[in-house]
Amino acid sequence: MKIEYSPIGIIHSPFKQQAGTPVQPSRANNAEGRIELLPQFVEGLTDIHEFSHIVLLCHLHQCSGNFQMKVTPYLDDAQHGLFATRSPRRPNPIGLSVVELLGVENNLLHIRNLDLLDGTPVLDIKPYVGEFDQRPGAKFGWFERAKKIATADDRFCETEQH
Amino acid sequence: MKIEYSPIGIIHSPFKQQAGTPVQPSRANNAEGRIELLPQFVEGLTDIHEFSHIVLLCHLHQCSGNFQMKVTPYLDDAQHGLFATRSPRRPNPIGLSVVELLGVENNLLHIRNLDLLDGTPVLDIKPYVGEFDQRPGAKFGWFERAKKIATADDRFCETEQH
Repeated sequence: MKIEYSPIGIIHSPFKQQAGTPVQPSRANNAEGRIELLPQFVEGLTDIHEFSHIVLLCHLHQCSGNFQMKVTPYLDDAQHGLFATRSPRRPNPIGLSVVELLGVENNLLHIRNLDLLDGTPVLDIKPYVGEFDQRPGAKFGWFERAKKIATADDRFCETEQH
Repeated sequence: MKIEYSPIGIIHSPFKQQAGTPVQPSRANNAEGRIELLPQFVEGLTDIHEFSHIVLLCHLHQCSGNFQMKVTPYLDDAQHGLFATRSPRRPNPIGLSVVELLGVENNLLHIRNLDLLDGTPVLDIKPYVGEFDQRPGAKFGWFERAKKIATADDRFCETEQH
């Protein structure tokens, strides 16, 4: 079974290569960028300015193929199962980023705490909703002892692999 | 630009049609189900049992096509822009569900608080991590006055549309 999607927009970001890109929005040191939505979707942004944060689902275009079932993530020295990590190189390389929404201007969404490469295709934008997306008291496995590293290296990036 | 994905597994759920399915995991009244992962991905589950919650990205197969840029969501009487709602019928109908992980048994993940239809294709499984996925103090727009409805009707469902 094949599932086919088309981008609804594109990310404009200061990060041009995986090495040096923030590992997550929470470690992005306030990096700003914008989403350029395709014009036919602009009406779908109505009321989104009321939300302080949005969920971005993106196609991690530089992380397709050649995934491995065990990986050493940026934030640990030990290997873990791929689905117990947030490694960008996955069977379906969909990135999940909760970013701060600074403002909306026609088809542009200005965002802060961006962890995405310039040119990343956007698949979906959802409002971030506490009741749906927050789980107080949850347990986070090995992430509870994760390293404090803020930026990625090139280990998961196709175009930079040696 | 076309992006092609393949399911990594499938959802087994007590919900066989959209009408009556929980609108979100937080309103699922402890409904239980399981993810059946394709056998080639089982090694990728290593260490996932350490996490109390996982993020599921699924292809909402009964919600493809015919999306509208403004919708009246289950939880309000007013229209909102599609991207300011969690309506399942979207340009790329990817569902985001944070569910409780009860246990892992070979290629089966037993989960609780399920808001997905039986037979839903799974695109990705990620560990739910507080630092990455929680935003204390966030503002949730119209959801802050959303209705208390727990289950969906058939308004967004292809096979049930009148």
